[in-house]
Amino acid sequence: MPGRAPPCEAQCSLAAWLWVCALGGLCALGTAGSPGTPRPCQAPQQWEGRQVLFLQSSGHNSRALLSYDGPNQRVRVLDEKKALIPCKRLFEYILLYKDGVMFQIEQATKQCSKFPLTTAWDPLDIPDNSTFEDQYSIGGPQEQITVQEWSNRKSARTYETWIGVYTAKDCYPVQETFIQNYSVVLSMRFFDVQLGIKDPSVFTPPSTCHTAQAESMSEDCAW
Amino acid sequence: MPGRAPPCEAQCSLAAWLWVCALGGLCALGTAGSPGTPRPCQAPQQWEGRQVLFLQSSGHNSRALLSYDGPNQRVRVLDEKKALIPCKRLFEYILLYKDGVMFQIEQATKQCSKFPLTTAWDPLDIPDNSTFEDQYSIGGPQEQITVQEWSNRKSARTYETWIGVYTAKDCYPVQETFIQNYSVVLSMRFFDVQLGIKDPSVFTPPSTCHTAQAESMSEDCAW
Repeated sequence: MPGRAPPCEAQCSLAAWLWVCALGGLCALGTAGSPGTPRPCQAPQQWEGRQVLFLQSSGHNSRALLSYDGPNQRVRVLDEKKALIPCKRLFEYILLYKDGVMFQIEQATKQCSKFPLTTAWDPLDIPDNSTFEDQYSIGGPQEQITVQEWSNRKSARTYETWIGVYTAKDCYPVQETFIQNYSVVLSMRFFDVQLGIKDPSVFTPPSTCHTAQAESMSEDCAW
Repeated sequence: MPGRAPPCEAQCSLAAWLWVCALGGLCALGTAGSPGTPRPCQAPQQWEGRQVLFLQSSGHNSRALLSYDGPNQRVRVLDEKKALIPCKRLFEYILLYKDGVMFQIEQATKQCSKFPLTTAWDPLDIPDNSTFEDQYSIGGPQEQITVQEWSNRKSARTYETWIGVYTAKDCYPVQETFIQNYSVVLSMRFFDVQLGIKDPSVFTPPSTCHTAQAESMSEDCAW
């Protein structure tokens, strides 16, 4: 996503906050692609799936269920439990860009915190002015998908700060990578993508959020 | 690959040296999986493809062509040029585990260095005693592959230091990740996998390697 601001490292200590960083950036810099090179495909506007987030500052991979609603500019992220980690709180995040607000909800207690979303919505897609980098298959003979890699590189002598990998035919998101000072600061891999939003009520915060304050909750237990 | 030694950080400053680290580890620790869970599939023994390596210590992604020959315990890695980077030397690496030797060859000049390989061969596959972590699809409806994720985690309360992602049907390698102190120190993604080795002579070092010394060459130009 050309022109996107690099992810905010300090703010991104929670898995879903990455969405704040990834989606909320600057837009529409750059130039159109050369003739003869592929054109960016149109990524799905509403879908659900799973993601693995890798954040350089923590070094961790974290998993979540994801509901992505482009037209209504909202995202819901539900931390997935992986194995038995003795003391780790799991959260749900609801990001409503049109309302400029994000909710962080602890899954077990429904304790809710509310934060302003000050960055603009930037959809999860391949901007028209992206640079085509590569096309390749994942898997092997008889069991493969073809994907395309796009970036926001502007010339042969500059480095990209964003790389997006999408399937070549239907433009399903596969991976997004953000680079800062030549280092990968954030990557998101997407799995089990299904088109549409099964239950739009996932974007409605629970009643505990009505009186929520802006107090960030840690992923670790207090004890 | 359970029991594998974590990648050697100091030694792994060159892209292909990762293979030294990734392949050369300890083996055969751990216990067999529980009944009812999937069994590890048998990864292809000889194949060629491409890889993207991410190394935490550099933060960089680097690309290479790869020839993998399991039965003969040898790997060839050919740095791929990506865009026009003003001053970057590209190398070829030939790792011959049966001979305990690795060659580093500069692609442009054929300048060659030779190093001992002191670690044992450890094939690129899913060891029998691996833990099944997850199965998911990459892509979306009508354009997806199903992959399985395996690790060397031994119980619900321990963390893994290796995660391998392979296709569910034909067991093509998709991604290998190595974790140390809860951080991803190395990941390798594989693309364009083709079975077999087209030209086995890629494992034969050029004549400049006959008198090669053990002098590591930097990826950056000297000037």
